[in-house]
Amino acid sequence: MKRIMLTVAYDGTSYCGWQVQRNGNTIEGELNRVLSELLGEDIRVTGGSRTDSGVHALGNVAVFDTEAKMPAEKFSYALNQRLPEDIRIQESRQVPPDFHPRRCFSKKTYEYRIYNAEFPMPVKRLYAYFTYVPLDERRMREAAAFLIGEHDFKSFCSAGTAAESTVRTIYDLQVCREGEEIVIRVTGNGFLYNMVRIIAGTLIEAGRGNLEPAEVKTILEKKDRACAGPTAPANGLTLCQYQIL
Amino acid sequence: MKRIMLTVAYDGTSYCGWQVQRNGNTIEGELNRVLSELLGEDIRVTGGSRTDSGVHALGNVAVFDTEAKMPAEKFSYALNQRLPEDIRIQESRQVPPDFHPRRCFSKKTYEYRIYNAEFPMPVKRLYAYFTYVPLDERRMREAAAFLIGEHDFKSFCSAGTAAESTVRTIYDLQVCREGEEIVIRVTGNGFLYNMVRIIAGTLIEAGRGNLEPAEVKTILEKKDRACAGPTAPANGLTLCQYQIL
Repeated sequence: MKRIMLTVAYDGTSYCGWQVQRNGNTIEGELNRVLSELLGEDIRVTGGSRTDSGVHALGNVAVFDTEAKMPAEKFSYALNQRLPEDIRIQESRQVPPDFHPRRCFSKKTYEYRIYNAEFPMPVKRLYAYFTYVPLDERRMREAAAFLIGEHDFKSFCSAGTAAESTVRTIYDLQVCREGEEIVIRVTGNGFLYNMVRIIAGTLIEAGRGNLEPAEVKTILEKKDRACAGPTAPANGLTLCQYQIL
Repeated sequence: MKRIMLTVAYDGTSYCGWQVQRNGNTIEGELNRVLSELLGEDIRVTGGSRTDSGVHALGNVAVFDTEAKMPAEKFSYALNQRLPEDIRIQESRQVPPDFHPRRCFSKKTYEYRIYNAEFPMPVKRLYAYFTYVPLDERRMREAAAFLIGEHDFKSFCSAGTAAESTVRTIYDLQVCREGEEIVIRVTGNGFLYNMVRIIAGTLIEAGRGNLEPAEVKTILEKKDRACAGPTAPANGLTLCQYQIL
């Protein structure tokens, strides 16, 4: 018996998110199906980030146990031959038998992209949220600064979370303009349910002038979801890196 | 009667190219359909670049004549409400009644993207050609330099072209690496049938070491399509700009 960790990239457009559910295809479901077929065992992977419907990933993680003799590094090749083209394993390697991706220290980096121009750009539509309302990225950057560090992010968490504590640490949160796109890049030790999308929605409110950047401090203190901005749409969000420390 | 010019952006993934054909949807066909519905006239647009199936555009151009009283600038809004989400008008304006997009001086800029890594990246798959064979972008840049300027590009043109002359001028041709991607960016006064894709295919051959960069000079002189590299796949190609001078 050995435990294998996969680094998994996917285009989330056609999936109902990571987690297996009764109706609709999921990333976890595709991995379970293809691994079980390949190995002739009943495989159930354990995921790192359980991303929502429509969210993309360059490097989410999944672990599973197998009796197979295949060298750990070969799983990526074998799986990529069988997976649909919108899911691709970037790396496979053996990890200790007690390793669990959500019960270890890790750093996750997410990007939220906004295409901010008069009209939508078709080639960007699946990977960036479009708004024609002009956004001032300096105001967004000012607002973002209040979120860096260890805070109780209860105001930035959708109802229905199973998390025991809503305290998380954001190591870095940058807002950059790349041509017509504004990119919010955030790294933290963990993110609550919808946290990155609520951060993006709140920074967008600051960018369009509906919110003073300094109000973000008050929103944190209120510990009330209703005080923060709306949950920004899923298509703008990409999990870029899930780094095991 | 007035003549309107549209700047048209599209994701070419689901289309059989620009030009109307009997089987399958085309960009030109969608524009004709939506314009005719909107205006109650039988509209047939004239396109700038007749891009192939799977090729994308940030700014192709199309012109048409209409009796409509709608101000030229309003067409972009009215059309975008009716077009499928993978086609979006970026600008509409009135042009002189004798203006023809292919019979005027113009500069076109194309980008060819290559995703060069061990495994494909799902979110890049529709907009970049994937190859795991390592490419040396310095060799590609060296090869590219021989193509800049006025040349007879007969070796870089697929059979069946209707062009009277195969002489074209390339103003600029750059090869840059952006992370795992190699971007070929070329600007010229016009491009022959499949010319950018054959240039990309030839530079890829130089990048993988199958061709010496200096051989590109000989390939030009031979004026024989068989001497150049293969036609690189359509998905990597995007028409970035069609500038009327």
